[in-house]
Amino acid sequence: MKKNTLPFLIFVLCNGLFLFSCSTAEAPPNYTQTSDNKTEIPAPEIVLRSIHDDALIGSPAYAQLRYLCKDIGPRLSGSKNAQKAVEYMQRVLDSMNLDSVYLQPVMVPHWERGEKEFCQIIGNDKNKINQKVLDITALGGSVGTDGRIKSEIVAVNSLEDLENLSKKEAKKYEGKIIFVTQPMNAKFINTGSAYGACSSVRVRGANYAAKVGAKGFLLRSLTLATDNHPHTGVMIYEEDGRKIPAAALSTNSANYLEKLLVKAEKDKKPVEIELQMNCETLPDVLSYNVVGELRGREKPEEIITVGGHLDSWDLAEGAHDDGTGCLQSVEVLRLIQNLEARPKRTIRCVLFMNEENGARGAKKYAEIAKEKNENHIAALESDSGGFTPRGFRVQDSTRLKVIQKWQPLFEPYNLHKVEYGYGGTDIRPLGDSGTLLIGLEPDSQRYFDHHHAETDVFENVHEREFLLGAAAMASLTYMMAEYGIE
Amino acid sequence: MKKNTLPFLIFVLCNGLFLFSCSTAEAPPNYTQTSDNKTEIPAPEIVLRSIHDDALIGSPAYAQLRYLCKDIGPRLSGSKNAQKAVEYMQRVLDSMNLDSVYLQPVMVPHWERGEKEFCQIIGNDKNKINQKVLDITALGGSVGTDGRIKSEIVAVNSLEDLENLSKKEAKKYEGKIIFVTQPMNAKFINTGSAYGACSSVRVRGANYAAKVGAKGFLLRSLTLATDNHPHTGVMIYEEDGRKIPAAALSTNSANYLEKLLVKAEKDKKPVEIELQMNCETLPDVLSYNVVGELRGREKPEEIITVGGHLDSWDLAEGAHDDGTGCLQSVEVLRLIQNLEARPKRTIRCVLFMNEENGARGAKKYAEIAKEKNENHIAALESDSGGFTPRGFRVQDSTRLKVIQKWQPLFEPYNLHKVEYGYGGTDIRPLGDSGTLLIGLEPDSQRYFDHHHAETDVFENVHEREFLLGAAAMASLTYMMAEYGIE
Repeated sequence: MKKNTLPFLIFVLCNGLFLFSCSTAEAPPNYTQTSDNKTEIPAPEIVLRSIHDDALIGSPAYAQLRYLCKDIGPRLSGSKNAQKAVEYMQRVLDSMNLDSVYLQPVMVPHWERGEKEFCQIIGNDKNKINQKVLDITALGGSVGTDGRIKSEIVAVNSLEDLENLSKKEAKKYEGKIIFVTQPMNAKFINTGSAYGACSSVRVRGANYAAKVGAKGFLLRSLTLATDNHPHTGVMIYEEDGRKIPAAALSTNSANYLEKLLVKAEKDKKPVEIELQMNCETLPDVLSYNVVGELRGREKPEEIITVGGHLDSWDLAEGAHDDGTGCLQSVEVLRLIQNLEARPKRTIRCVLFMNEENGARGAKKYAEIAKEKNENHIAALESDSGGFTPRGFRVQDSTRLKVIQKWQPLFEPYNLHKVEYGYGGTDIRPLGDSGTLLIGLEPDSQRYFDHHHAETDVFENVHEREFLLGAAAMASLTYMMAEYGIE
Repeated sequence: MKKNTLPFLIFVLCNGLFLFSCSTAEAPPNYTQTSDNKTEIPAPEIVLRSIHDDALIGSPAYAQLRYLCKDIGPRLSGSKNAQKAVEYMQRVLDSMNLDSVYLQPVMVPHWERGEKEFCQIIGNDKNKINQKVLDITALGGSVGTDGRIKSEIVAVNSLEDLENLSKKEAKKYEGKIIFVTQPMNAKFINTGSAYGACSSVRVRGANYAAKVGAKGFLLRSLTLATDNHPHTGVMIYEEDGRKIPAAALSTNSANYLEKLLVKAEKDKKPVEIELQMNCETLPDVLSYNVVGELRGREKPEEIITVGGHLDSWDLAEGAHDDGTGCLQSVEVLRLIQNLEARPKRTIRCVLFMNEENGARGAKKYAEIAKEKNENHIAALESDSGGFTPRGFRVQDSTRLKVIQKWQPLFEPYNLHKVEYGYGGTDIRPLGDSGTLLIGLEPDSQRYFDHHHAETDVFENVHEREFLLGAAAMASLTYMMAEYGIE
């Protein structure tokens, strides 16, 4: 019925169609001869398209992530679950028919939370302060409270303020619990930058509090979300400093307490809290990096490492931090293995142990690479969450230009950001020998909602976002492995 | 303790910090004189930074979206809720001290679902087929079944196959219910393109089924998610065709039924289903577009429209489709109102009625604009979800270049994609008079998980992602309103 075609066309254009901005699923066939004149390999556009097709249809990676998250779960360094994760990932790699799969032994710290923490405001009829339980989590590495402690709590606006207290002012904090109220700055567009500008509150805050004689240290969780989930993360005592218990409050609890303390300050009526933390540090434990390798067809001695970290905090499943990085790295091997021709250089997938509280796996990997005099040309890490990829952070302004030349190949996959930036904690020690360090840059908006908190679970990882990240990594890895970075 | 500084530094660099890729919250102060030599306005970098700061700190837009979604809810054209939404949004705009707020009356279709649909496979001991309820939803505009109908169901692979049936083949489908199994193609990187390539199955499928004498039409929901939520959406009968009931199956139900039918075909044992749909089309209803305006300081007769659509499907809260577009458009006015200087041209926020099943509000708005001989230089729509913005789709290749010149201003906000593409359904009729049409392009991965399904609820909108979209729209709107697009 010809006369009815127009309304249909109009309606096909309705309902949010973006017909004009199609990134189609086809690419023109095109083959090129390689420099060695032996292997005929498809043009990079074709290879990158086939990598993405393969990732988006029938990849096993999301189911593997589910197993790591739901069937194993939290895997803090030194825990039984961390060992189970090592064994599971080794099984996954073993099943892939790679050129080599092995474990690298490494001694890791062993911190345990013990029974869940408890923190409450002590009610006071005279002050008209209600008893209220606060949501807290001990920071990783903190000492416990040795039973329940009671103390006045006082607020300080920022780590800088705490650091710069005059001797006279410092007296006010002696024997008390210090609460640094400093929030992450929501004005940063990349939430990672907001976190970076604030993370020393968590890592170092307890040391400054100890110096002014405080009995304990609390901070507002490092997140831009407003909810009841406290976020843990590493803290480090100075070697010769006093060790006081350190914990993070959920943002809702922090907001509540902050308001209460402002009022208490005005009324000159102190607020007291009770705090109990049962955590402790046990002797180091033997653990492992898990390694799988695809040898290059022409320059096998030149190695490209792709990786994430296998350990996680203990509060949740370590889904985005960094289960996604691990399974994306494994997926890189699968995607490249499925190509028509194997690339020139060796690709090694490394699942690092102990990123969260010591980076011992990272150091061990670089140490062994150096001992063996291996030639690591580049390393690519995914440790910023399994969200839609936006590009890559390249930690060298000269070689960045080589990667940027490939940007037109990446743009059909919405990878527009190839910029100077931080590679990653697990690959950082390789940088000392000149290895080019690169970090996958996913969209950052949701990462710190879940980072180190009990909401970092499998359900919060979106399958396509996660797989597109893996395909982005495989695309860059393929380009470096086939064409080099000189 | 100096000797301890290094480990701290190392650890501050750990845990996913991207210190190197900071997009800082400051911009250098810099003011420029405008062409009129009257108003001193800050440089665009400063304006865009201040728009983003304002959006990210203390915006009321997310709370307004919550009200629209949770306190009002679904707002299908012609429903009581659609009227409540009109009144609420008018109140919001009225409270903003704009230059003008008004309603544009428009008659809209009124389709009602009635009691929820029912669909089940009829069990059959001989065939060893189990009775099983399938998740379905009537398509918007469909007729009902007039009680419960029973029929054999047969599968067709695609709309194209259905369209091209030979007369002989067509006979096989007479009196039966046709199920088109065609899925969205997961290989498209932008999910909108996958939807666009498949949406005619929903819009037109029932007509082709009617032509071969079918009794009913089912399709696989237009989504890339695999779950139990069927997705509705508009379908349109040919004027002189037979009207048969049309519904969508959840992807899980579609997968189940498809497998069953493959087996049944092999065994030559037909499958029967029962279907009941209680929907009907009632007489048109009076409704409204909601309009709020900020007049330009120098060229008030030149108008830039920013908008989204206020109606939604009835299954959920229309959070991403298109509550976010509406509240982002209102937020554009607030953000621009808060600037130091009002831009030269007029900015009009329009909340269109009836995008989903008729686009009557869109047509009415363009019609009145033409009657009044208004000068609409550009229109910007947000109707692709409240996810992290990635750029803009500009529906004119010449004027695209003007917008692309501003791209360096947008990149600090991760808006890298300024490309040719579809503007939006609500602004489309303005295009006939030469208005430049632009669509906000957010990340597309999660949109079709929720689109037209019962999961399109407030909880699935992330506050920062949504606000960054509003700030992106305000940034482009400001540039066009201040600097023009010639």
